[in-house]
Amino acid sequence: MANSIRPASFTLVISCPDKVGIVAAVSSFVAARSGSLLESNHHTDVEQGWFYMRNVISAASLEVSLEQFRSEFSSLAASFAMQWQLRDNSNLQSVVIMASHASHCLADILHRWQSGELACQIPCVISNHENLRSMVEWHGIPFHYVAVPREEKSEAFARVTDIISQHQANTVVLARYMQIIPPSLCEEFSGRLINIHHSFLPSFVGANPYQKAYERGVKLIGATCHYVTQELDEGPIIEQDVIRVNHSCDKEDLVRLGRDVEQSVLSRGLRYHLEDRVIVRGNKTVVFLS
Amino acid sequence: MANSIRPASFTLVISCPDKVGIVAAVSSFVAARSGSLLESNHHTDVEQGWFYMRNVISAASLEVSLEQFRSEFSSLAASFAMQWQLRDNSNLQSVVIMASHASHCLADILHRWQSGELACQIPCVISNHENLRSMVEWHGIPFHYVAVPREEKSEAFARVTDIISQHQANTVVLARYMQIIPPSLCEEFSGRLINIHHSFLPSFVGANPYQKAYERGVKLIGATCHYVTQELDEGPIIEQDVIRVNHSCDKEDLVRLGRDVEQSVLSRGLRYHLEDRVIVRGNKTVVFLS
Amino acid sequence: MANSIRPASFTLVISCPDKVGIVAAVSSFVAARSGSLLESNHHTDVEQGWFYMRNVISAASLEVSLEQFRSEFSSLAASFAMQWQLRDNSNLQSVVIMASHASHCLADILHRWQSGELACQIPCVISNHENLRSMVEWHGIPFHYVAVPREEKSEAFARVTDIISQHQANTVVLARYMQIIPPSLCEEFSGRLINIHHSFLPSFVGANPYQKAYERGVKLIGATCHYVTQELDEGPIIEQDVIRVNHSCDKEDLVRLGRDVEQSVLSRGLRYHLEDRVIVRGNKTVVFLS
Amino acid sequence: MANSIRPASFTLVISCPDKVGIVAAVSSFVAARSGSLLESNHHTDVEQGWFYMRNVISAASLEVSLEQFRSEFSSLAASFAMQWQLRDNSNLQSVVIMASHASHCLADILHRWQSGELACQIPCVISNHENLRSMVEWHGIPFHYVAVPREEKSEAFARVTDIISQHQANTVVLARYMQIIPPSLCEEFSGRLINIHHSFLPSFVGANPYQKAYERGVKLIGATCHYVTQELDEGPIIEQDVIRVNHSCDKEDLVRLGRDVEQSVLSRGLRYHLEDRVIVRGNKTVVFLS
Repeated sequence: MANSIRPASFTLVISCPDKVGIVAAVSSFVAARSGSLLESNHHTDVEQGWFYMRNVISAASLEVSLEQFRSEFSSLAASFAMQWQLRDNSNLQSVVIMASHASHCLADILHRWQSGELACQIPCVISNHENLRSMVEWHGIPFHYVAVPREEKSEAFARVTDIISQHQANTVVLARYMQIIPPSLCEEFSGRLINIHHSFLPSFVGANPYQKAYERGVKLIGATCHYVTQELDEGPIIEQDVIRVNHSCDKEDLVRLGRDVEQSVLSRGLRYHLEDRVIVRGNKTVVFLS
Repeated sequence: MANSIRPASFTLVISCPDKVGIVAAVSSFVAARSGSLLESNHHTDVEQGWFYMRNVISAASLEVSLEQFRSEFSSLAASFAMQWQLRDNSNLQSVVIMASHASHCLADILHRWQSGELACQIPCVISNHENLRSMVEWHGIPFHYVAVPREEKSEAFARVTDIISQHQANTVVLARYMQIIPPSLCEEFSGRLINIHHSFLPSFVGANPYQKAYERGVKLIGATCHYVTQELDEGPIIEQDVIRVNHSCDKEDLVRLGRDVEQSVLSRGLRYHLEDRVIVRGNKTVVFLS
Repeated sequence: MANSIRPASFTLVISCPDKVGIVAAVSSFVAARSGSLLESNHHTDVEQGWFYMRNVISAASLEVSLEQFRSEFSSLAASFAMQWQLRDNSNLQSVVIMASHASHCLADILHRWQSGELACQIPCVISNHENLRSMVEWHGIPFHYVAVPREEKSEAFARVTDIISQHQANTVVLARYMQIIPPSLCEEFSGRLINIHHSFLPSFVGANPYQKAYERGVKLIGATCHYVTQELDEGPIIEQDVIRVNHSCDKEDLVRLGRDVEQSVLSRGLRYHLEDRVIVRGNKTVVFLS
Repeated sequence: MANSIRPASFTLVISCPDKVGIVAAVSSFVAARSGSLLESNHHTDVEQGWFYMRNVISAASLEVSLEQFRSEFSSLAASFAMQWQLRDNSNLQSVVIMASHASHCLADILHRWQSGELACQIPCVISNHENLRSMVEWHGIPFHYVAVPREEKSEAFARVTDIISQHQANTVVLARYMQIIPPSLCEEFSGRLINIHHSFLPSFVGANPYQKAYERGVKLIGATCHYVTQELDEGPIIEQDVIRVNHSCDKEDLVRLGRDVEQSVLSRGLRYHLEDRVIVRGNKTVVFLS
C-alpha cells in the first residue's frame, strides 16, 4: 500500500532553541554523508526563539546506514538541545481508526489507503456500532466492535486501549468517533491522536455544532483536524477548511455539506501527520507543506 | 454615481407567514400592471413557516406609477400580513460612513462609490481621528472629526447622532470604527447599522481577534459583516469570508492578510444591503443573491 | 436508497420565451390546486429573451394527481410555448456509470449512493478494465466488463449501448471513462450524458491536461463537469472548481490533488442533474441552487 | 513608505544546477559571518536537476558589510555556477505603473503603497488616458499622459521608454494597460515587466476574455498575474485566482466581479516580486511563500 513510486527516503524532523548556524550544521552533516535533500523546510519563530526543520533525505544517496546516521547525528543534536526524530519512510506507520455510525470519513480514508495514496498500515478499525463492519472487512481490515454504554465507559475504553496496544499503533484517528476519550489515552497518544471536529474551531466547541451554526446564521461552515488533548476541542490545530452555505440550507443541508469538508480536512491532516510535516509546540503546530 | 447602465426599476421586498398562493398573488398583481420582473427570488423557511420574497420590477414596463402601485399593493399586503417595502432604485440611499484610524475599508468603499460600482450617496464620513480627512475630502465628501475621549463618550455620540440625523442617513456603516455604539443608536438604526468584525464570528468575539487567532493557531482567518445590535458582535450576519494562513504568519501578517478579507466582505455586505437583498428575521438573515 | 426524509414532491422545470405573466400564470396554476412550493427559482436571460423556472411542489399538498396536473398543465404550457418536464421525485432515475481504471470518482459516487445522499438507482457499472469489479459488486451492483480494443471500438460501443439500453438508463455518467464516446450515443443521451474533465475548461482541452498544466506552470488546477456533445470537451458546463498548486508540485502531485477536485465536482454536478436543477440551452446551462 | 517595522535585511536569491551540498555551503557561508536567517526556502526541481533558494538575512546580525558579503560570496557562487542576486531591502525598488482607463488596479496599488503595505518607490504613473491624473497626483506621484494613437504607436512607446528610463525603473507594472508592449521593452524588462490578464490563463488568451467566458458559460472566472514576454499572454505565471459566477451573471457582472480578482491577484503578484520571492526559469516560476 506504500506509495511505491517515490524513492526510499528518511525524514529528519528537528525542533530546538533558535541559534545562528543550525541550518549550516544540519545541512553540512547531511552533505558530508552525500545525502541528497528531496525536500527541506525550516522555520524560525522569532517571537518564541524556536527553530523547526524537516528534511527528506534520499536513502540511495546516503553513504551511511540509518543507524549510523542516527548515532552520529545524536551528538550534533545534543549540542543544539534538539528534539528530533529520524524515520525510515519505508517502515509504514500503524494507524488505528476509530469510527462511530457515520461512514464518510472512514470510507474516504479507506479508499485513499487502498488506492495507495495514504502510506500507512491500518491494522484494525474500532467502532461502537456494527454498521460499518462490512465496509471495513471488505477492505481486508479487522473490525472490532466495542460498545460504549453510558455506565461502562471505563471498561469499554480499557478494551479499546488493549486493542490499540496489541496492534502497536503509532497513531490513532478519530474518524467522527463522537465519544470523549479518557485522559490516560490522550496522554499516551499525545501528538498522535487525531480528531476531526465538525466546526471551524474555536467556533462551536462541543456537541451539535451544525445546530449551533444553523442558529447563529453563519455564512460558512467548516471542519477542524486537531490533536486531541484533555481539553475538549482545544488541542493543536493541524488543518481547517470551510464551505459556503446560505439561508436556504436547513440543518440537514449543513450536515450534508459539512461531511465533504470533514473528510477532506481529516484526510489532509492525516497525510501531513504521516509524512511528518506537523511539529507541535505548546498548543500550536508548524505544518511544512512543500 | 448611480449605475446609470441599469434600467430604472423598483425593488419590492416582502416577508410574511407562509401560505399557499403568495407567489401567485404577488406575481399576478405585478403582471396585471404589466410589470416585467428583472430579478425575482423567494424562499420559504419551512421550520419557521415564514416566507421571504424580493422582486425587481422594470419601471418602464409598469402601467401605473410607483405611488399607485404602492397604494394598491397595500391591501394585498394586509391580507397576507406582510412586512414589505417598495423602493425606487433611482433614489439613492444616503450612507454615512464611520471610520477610525485604519484606511483600507474606507478607501475601498470610496473607490467603489466613485467608480459608480456602489450605488448610494455618501453625505459625510465621521471619524474619531483626523488622519483620513484628506482622502475623504479628495473624494468631495465632507469629513467630520468627532473625538471620543474615554470620559466624554456620551457627548461624543450625541454629536455623532446629530450629524447622522442632519444627513438623513438611511444606513450607517462602521468601516473599522472600533468604538462600541450606544444602545440608542443601535436601536434607531436597527437593520441599517452595518459593522465589519475582523474575525470569522462567532470565533474571537470582542477585542484583538487577530491576537486571539494567532494564539489559537487557526489555519484560516476571516471577517464578518453584520448588523449591529446591542449585544456585541452578536447581530445578524450578512456575509463572511476567510483566507488561509500558516505557522509562518506573525501577528502583523494576520493583520495584513485580514485587511483584504475585511474590505471585500464589508463591500459585498454593503452592496447586498443597498440592493435590498438582505432580509432580517430574528437574529438571522436571508440574502438573495440571484 | 432514496433520501427518505424529504417529503414526497414533484419537480416542474420550464423554459420558454420570456413574457410578462409567466410566473403569475404558473404559480397561480399551482396555487389553484393547493400546491405548496418547497423550492422555487426562476431566471430571465434578458439578452436572449428566455425564461427558466424550477418549482418543487409538495405532493401531499396537491389536490390533484400527477397525471391530472400534467394533463391540465399542458394547455398552459402550450400557450407560452414552454419546454417543460414534470417529475415525481419518488421515481428514482436510473444512472449507468462508466469507469476505466481510476477508482476515485466511482468510489465517491458509490459511497454517496449507498449512504442515501445521492437519490438514484444504479443498475450497473460498465468499465473497460476489470480492476474495479470487486468494489462495484460489493455495493450490490452488477459490473459489466467491455474491453475497448483500438480496432474494435464500434463493436465495443455497440455492446455498451446495448447494456445502457437494457437498463433503461435515464442518465449516463462518465466517471473518468477516458474513451471518446461515439456521436450516436452523444446524440441519444443529449443533456443526459455527464463527463468529468480533469482541467478547468476551456484550459487544457483533450488528453493529458495535468501534463499540460505542469508545463504551463499554472497556480491553480481544476476540473469541469459537463454534458458530452460531439465536440470534445466543448459541451455545456454544469460545475467547475479549482485547487491551489505551486512549484513544488510535480506531475504526480497534480494528479493526486486533482483527484479530489474531480470527484467533488462530478458528485455536485450529478446531484444538480438528478435534482433537475440544470437546464441546458444552446451550449450553456442554468443551474438553480436554492 | 517602506515597512519600517521589519528589521533591516538582505535578500539572497540563488538558482543553479542541483548538487549535494549547496544548502550546506550557503548556510555555512552565512553562519560563518554570524548571519541570522529571518526566512529561508529552497526547492529542488528533480526533473530539471535545478536548485532554487531564497534567504532573508538580518542585516544587524551580519559581521561584514553588504559589499564584503557580496565580494566573498561571488567565488562560492562561481563554484556552483549560480545565478544569484543580493538585495539590501532598505533600498526600495523603483516601480513605474502603466494604466489605461480602468482605475481599480491602480487605486488598489496606490492605497497599499500609501499605507506602507507595499514597499517600493513609485516615481510616476504613465497612462494613455487622462482620467486617472487627479487620483495619481493626489498621492503625490507624477502622472504622464502618453496617447497611443493607432498609427503612432512606435513614437508613443519611444516616449514611454524614455520616461521609464529617466525614472530608472527596476520594475514596470501594467495595471490593466490594455496595449501590446513592443518587443524591445519586453526584452529590456525581461522578468521585471508584470501584467495582469483578466482571465484564468491559458483560458481566454487575448482580447475580451469576459465576453468569451460569458459565451462559454464557465462557472468560475479568474485573473492571472504574469511576466510579459513577446508571446501574448504566454509569459511565466506568478499568481492566479478565481471567483464563482453563475447563469444570472451578465457580462457586466463578470466584469465587476472580475475587477476584485484582478486587483488582488496583481497586488499579491507584485508583492511577491518586490520581496524577491519569484524566480523565473524557462516559462515557469518558483514562488517562495513563507
